[in-house]
Amino acid sequence: MFDYLRDPQEIYAKSFATIEAEANLARFSDAERPVAIRIIHACGMVDMADQIAFGGDVVNAATAALSRGKPILCDAEMVRHGIISRLLPNQNPVLCTLNDGNTHDLAARMETTRSAAAVEAWANHIEGAIIAIGNAPTALYHLLEAIHDGRLNKPAAIVGMPVGFVGAAESKDALIEHANGIPFVTLRGRFGGSAVTAATINALARLAR
Amino acid sequence: MFDYLRDPQEIYAKSFATIEAEANLARFSDAERPVAIRIIHACGMVDMADQIAFGGDVVNAATAALSRGKPILCDAEMVRHGIISRLLPNQNPVLCTLNDGNTHDLAARMETTRSAAAVEAWANHIEGAIIAIGNAPTALYHLLEAIHDGRLNKPAAIVGMPVGFVGAAESKDALIEHANGIPFVTLRGRFGGSAVTAATINALARLAR
Repeated sequence: MFDYLRDPQEIYAKSFATIEAEANLARFSDAERPVAIRIIHACGMVDMADQIAFGGDVVNAATAALSRGKPILCDAEMVRHGIISRLLPNQNPVLCTLNDGNTHDLAARMETTRSAAAVEAWANHIEGAIIAIGNAPTALYHLLEAIHDGRLNKPAAIVGMPVGFVGAAESKDALIEHANGIPFVTLRGRFGGSAVTAATINALARLAR
Repeated sequence: MFDYLRDPQEIYAKSFATIEAEANLARFSDAERPVAIRIIHACGMVDMADQIAFGGDVVNAATAALSRGKPILCDAEMVRHGIISRLLPNQNPVLCTLNDGNTHDLAARMETTRSAAAVEAWANHIEGAIIAIGNAPTALYHLLEAIHDGRLNKPAAIVGMPVGFVGAAESKDALIEHANGIPFVTLRGRFGGSAVTAATINALARLAR
């Protein structure tokens, strides 16, 4: 009835060829390039290439942490479920504390969102871990503050791509300005989300194998 | 350290006020408007208002099906995990057959993707159900063909928002042209994804309660 590509390998090849042809990838290093391509692939927008910001040697830092079996800490269940476990190089735990029993009460006590309160529960896992924030600007802000205050140890790398109209662009600017030496990758502006965040982690996992 | 909104209700209110101020919502009916707003909210892009296409009385069709307890059939685990179960009005099952045991073999036999083959497993659930396709163009194409051929019964409504560079825009055009009387909502162009798809289902679920 319809004439369309059905072969998965052909679909991937044509997708990546389109991205190479249309996206402005020239400014990325060889290490960053496959990550940028996967971000663009996940959202279907070649213009997003211009919004990607890498900080420090995030690809090496994240792949080394993944190879060592460090956990991936997610702000949302959709991020967690977008991470493809068979790609992870060392049975890395993928954790999301958003729906932990005490997050709701902690958020009320701290007068913040559940997403921000959930970051507090990362304390025992965060040192050298990989952060994957794909939903809540308040989670990214809270993370940066908790690291700055010394309440949380430093992760190996931050994938910070919250989305929305209130604080998303601003929290990502804050990451770029106040990463405190932690390597990161982000998307400037309002767009972000669980799909691009999970795609970034999956791209890093492929590079770590 | 940073000055940002922390109150969830204030964040929602300011987000929706921004969407009302910046997005072109004039062409939507009263029924469609809250769905359009949630789609824009999920992706952080007010321009996406111009890409939304509603077909038939999709809000009434989908909310009636949800109220009757009909299942929601998803093409991807990320879509399934983005649907907020406490919003569903009648303990609606949320199903994803992508990782069923025989999907891989069926895809090989049918010479198509796993996502398309997974649609075949919807046969016993699809009549009057709500479809949520947020990833694979081939799943949407396959669905339209299987309904056209009479191999699958008609669902109550199709949320069809696959994403990508190969077939995404084209499969959504096919939905608009060949919906076969089934009410639908889609996003023209390459952009789509699990977040906007789940947000659409969640918006419909809120209206059904």
